[in-house]
Amino acid sequence: MKVIAEIYIIPLGVGLSLSPYIAECERILKNYHLTIHLHAEGTNIEGELTDVLQAIEACIKEIHAMQVPRLMTQVKINSRTDRTETMQEKISSVEGKI
Amino acid sequence: MKVIAEIYIIPLGVGLSLSPYIAECERILKNYHLTIHLHAEGTNIEGELTDVLQAIEACIKEIHAMQVPRLMTQVKINSRTDRTETMQEKISSVEGKI
Amino acid sequence: MKVIAEIYIIPLGVGLSLSPYIAECERILKNYHLTIHLHAEGTNIEGELTDVLQAIEACIKEIHAMQVPRLMTQVKINSRTDRTETMQEKISSVEGKI
Amino acid sequence: MKVIAEIYIIPLGVGLSLSPYIAECERILKNYHLTIHLHAEGTNIEGELTDVLQAIEACIKEIHAMQVPRLMTQVKINSRTDRTETMQEKISSVEGKI
Repeated sequence: MKVIAEIYIIPLGVGLSLSPYIAECERILKNYHLTIHLHAEGTNIEGELTDVLQAIEACIKEIHAMQVPRLMTQVKINSRTDRTETMQEKISSVEGKI
Repeated sequence: MKVIAEIYIIPLGVGLSLSPYIAECERILKNYHLTIHLHAEGTNIEGELTDVLQAIEACIKEIHAMQVPRLMTQVKINSRTDRTETMQEKISSVEGKI
Repeated sequence: MKVIAEIYIIPLGVGLSLSPYIAECERILKNYHLTIHLHAEGTNIEGELTDVLQAIEACIKEIHAMQVPRLMTQVKINSRTDRTETMQEKISSVEGKI
Repeated sequence: MKVIAEIYIIPLGVGLSLSPYIAECERILKNYHLTIHLHAEGTNIEGELTDVLQAIEACIKEIHAMQVPRLMTQVKINSRTDRTETMQEKISSVEGKI
């Protein structure tokens, strides 16, 4: 099942700069051959549900391995069986109506 | 790795009553032997990260199998390596300070 | 308009113990005469939309005033015009189907 | 206080196409003179906290006025007092580390 998802990670106990951890997560998502789009409040992901969840599990474990003692991870998963839809189609559908 | 998580599901295209779908998800989470706590804005889950993610994948697939054409799933995952913490300990820690 | 909401706050740059900040937010919510329910992954709130949003704004400002340099706040707002529903009714509706 | 936020709305009881409602919310956010960025899993917003919350309240009320009987709204608010940061700076900070 193809899904569009978003992952948003908040490492705690490592100060205020979170970008090194987000960058590491981006690298992991790419290794899983997922289509990703980084934005200011998370990273959107397009791919198979199983792959997305495995990549998220890998991100959580890898970020802890970077000496992060506490991590909050937020995930949105948008799944539909009526038709397929890409991230770009979702955006275009709204933009066409503004 | 033990985590405390929250799952929040929003089925679309099936009207306004979502409780049958949330109840089905509760049954699935229990089958995975996870500790769960239902509240008004989601279901909290305590268990191994791998089990939690597998249970969430099963919920998504099973809810679509109930003729739900579109589903929004939101997940929070709270993981820490510095010490273990239960859902009840998190609540007690705040209540002790109010 | 009455709503059921959830607030989840993650202060950054103050170490791993977040309960003093969550306790402060609980006090603020109570001062706004909102019905609240603390759980392991947030605090549920029942009240008028305008009051809920004002209380959330007060929480954000007050937590920064506690020397928190960076704060992630997550809010869910569940609003409906077809009928009223309390937090307890939402839970009972699911429990009756399990 | 300047914040970077994200709003994600899920209208229920109006079928599977949500783009007309998201487009209406975009128009409202623009009327509040907020900087916005639409992506596949929400709309990011940059502006004063008070304006952001007022715009979100207006979105919720306006979408219900479009005959939406039930609405789930999710908001992330990212606030910091140590320094200012734009949406583009957050993205560039991660991209520079990949």
